[in-house]
Amino acid sequence: MTAKEIRVAAEETAVDQVRYFIRKIAASPVPHTRTGGVLEDALGSSGKLLRGRLLLRCAALGPDAYEQQERLCVLAAMVELTHLASLIHDDIIDDAPIRRGRPSVQGRYGKDAAVYAGDFLISRVLCWGAREGMNDAVERLAQAMEEMCIGEIGQAQCRFCEDVTAEDYYTNIRGKTAALFRTACGIGAAEAGCTGAVVDRLERFGESLGIVFQLRDDLLDFGASRREAGKETHQDFREGIYTLPVLLALQSAEGRASLLPLMRENRERALTDLEIRQMEREVIRLGGVEAAWAEIHSCLAVGEVMLDTLEDCEPARELRRMWYALGKR
Amino acid sequence: MTAKEIRVAAEETAVDQVRYFIRKIAASPVPHTRTGGVLEDALGSSGKLLRGRLLLRCAALGPDAYEQQERLCVLAAMVELTHLASLIHDDIIDDAPIRRGRPSVQGRYGKDAAVYAGDFLISRVLCWGAREGMNDAVERLAQAMEEMCIGEIGQAQCRFCEDVTAEDYYTNIRGKTAALFRTACGIGAAEAGCTGAVVDRLERFGESLGIVFQLRDDLLDFGASRREAGKETHQDFREGIYTLPVLLALQSAEGRASLLPLMRENRERALTDLEIRQMEREVIRLGGVEAAWAEIHSCLAVGEVMLDTLEDCEPARELRRMWYALGKR
Repeated sequence: MTAKEIRVAAEETAVDQVRYFIRKIAASPVPHTRTGGVLEDALGSSGKLLRGRLLLRCAALGPDAYEQQERLCVLAAMVELTHLASLIHDDIIDDAPIRRGRPSVQGRYGKDAAVYAGDFLISRVLCWGAREGMNDAVERLAQAMEEMCIGEIGQAQCRFCEDVTAEDYYTNIRGKTAALFRTACGIGAAEAGCTGAVVDRLERFGESLGIVFQLRDDLLDFGASRREAGKETHQDFREGIYTLPVLLALQSAEGRASLLPLMRENRERALTDLEIRQMEREVIRLGGVEAAWAEIHSCLAVGEVMLDTLEDCEPARELRRMWYALGKR
Repeated sequence: MTAKEIRVAAEETAVDQVRYFIRKIAASPVPHTRTGGVLEDALGSSGKLLRGRLLLRCAALGPDAYEQQERLCVLAAMVELTHLASLIHDDIIDDAPIRRGRPSVQGRYGKDAAVYAGDFLISRVLCWGAREGMNDAVERLAQAMEEMCIGEIGQAQCRFCEDVTAEDYYTNIRGKTAALFRTACGIGAAEAGCTGAVVDRLERFGESLGIVFQLRDDLLDFGASRREAGKETHQDFREGIYTLPVLLALQSAEGRASLLPLMRENRERALTDLEIRQMEREVIRLGGVEAAWAEIHSCLAVGEVMLDTLEDCEPARELRRMWYALGKR
């Protein structure tokens, strides 16, 4: 095995432990009941655990990573569960667009179960943290939750607005997405005994990573990939959430002349697929997609400087690889 | 001033401090913005602060109540904010009944803002608690939140079911209502230095109080008071949540014959006000309301025994007065 293969295998072992703690922390106190079934389903599959992995990778830069391995896996599980709770709460909104007449896609158990299943996961995470005396991590996580809420409310307040700016967009994604990435890095680094300066740098790295991650995710709509995968594209636009490519295309007079009429219609009724494709073509033609990619690359360049200040070791190289992978189309 | 007047004045001073901490803990980090406006509105008026007062009254039984006064007011504010977050999340459900065709009463800012405003308050409470090292209280509060979620999910799972039992009802209200009453008592007593035995007793008292409180609240629908106050009655029944008077009326064959047809209609469509009044008359005629009052009085008798084990002092007498007031029609 090469050094890299050994490292990958070690991470997978740790990630298995994270999955174990996710199940353990979120275990239903009422198994074999209808309510227990809701809570177990809410857990769903645990996904790629990107935020948990990020926590472990940042922790690998600290002197206590090996000794604190189990505690770090618990913390990674707590970060993932916080993310999962926010996804569950997001789904409530996405299923019930406020200004739209389309029939609401009721989830399996209804919105009431979703609100409380999300709250249940949050309460479990924080109860566990308080019991284990993880005050610093609980404070960081609660702070991230707060910023996520503010970002989400900010985004909701911007829905269907014609005058949303790229600055509003960045404010909102810094809260709704980047805060938890930043917190994953900060908790991992702090708990593994990194110095304050390294914790700060890794937090800023995490925040940039979160922003680029969200930018890329929003760009995915502008391309064939989702359509080919059979997913509905431009759900955000349909719900009045205007992402960076749209906002950048709107910066020219030509862009406003072309897109505002569609945005006004969008506020009144569900646009047809044809109209949505027309919007997509216009955003591409007006250079919104290219400009958003340029912003990704400029973010990446800034983050690179930050990564260069870290000691040159294998975990730092791992973070650099993650970082560059985000720049690839 | 009599001793009682002095005590009342002291409690009002403490309650003012609780209100101050509610505002302080939940202060928006983004004042003078649209998002800040949502968060400030979410706070609303702070109500009667029943749970916070209960915490202070239980604390008054402990030796450290005077010394810990400020901390106790912070904790009372945390309990009240947890309650407020749950009310905000409840409103999401109540505004969007799942199986009903009636137009949804959108709140001022929509459901998305409500989900995240509730989450924001929860994160603020827990962040504050972690920062101040209030681990025991945070653990108790998170445990209460968990039980509230399970109670609410349980209630949601029972909606429109014909075979819900009084036992299901008690299980659900023990979580959704009584858990936070219990926790308010437990936190107050523990933080004021009561012995473990007294903390236990006061927690059981708080749980019983919460159950009786919910029973009374559910009984309020069966009488003229709400209708006279211009409020819509039987919102629970309309939403398929069958409360104790209904469930007790259903225990006889006659009750099932009389009520099940209405309950089946209720599942399919919005009942008319006439049908709702018919249901109410039947529940009263079948003895459901009287039987629910009898359960309140039997709860009160059990709680009395518990209160009698407390040392005979003014704070204990205060709790006893609170207790008896709940038995009055």
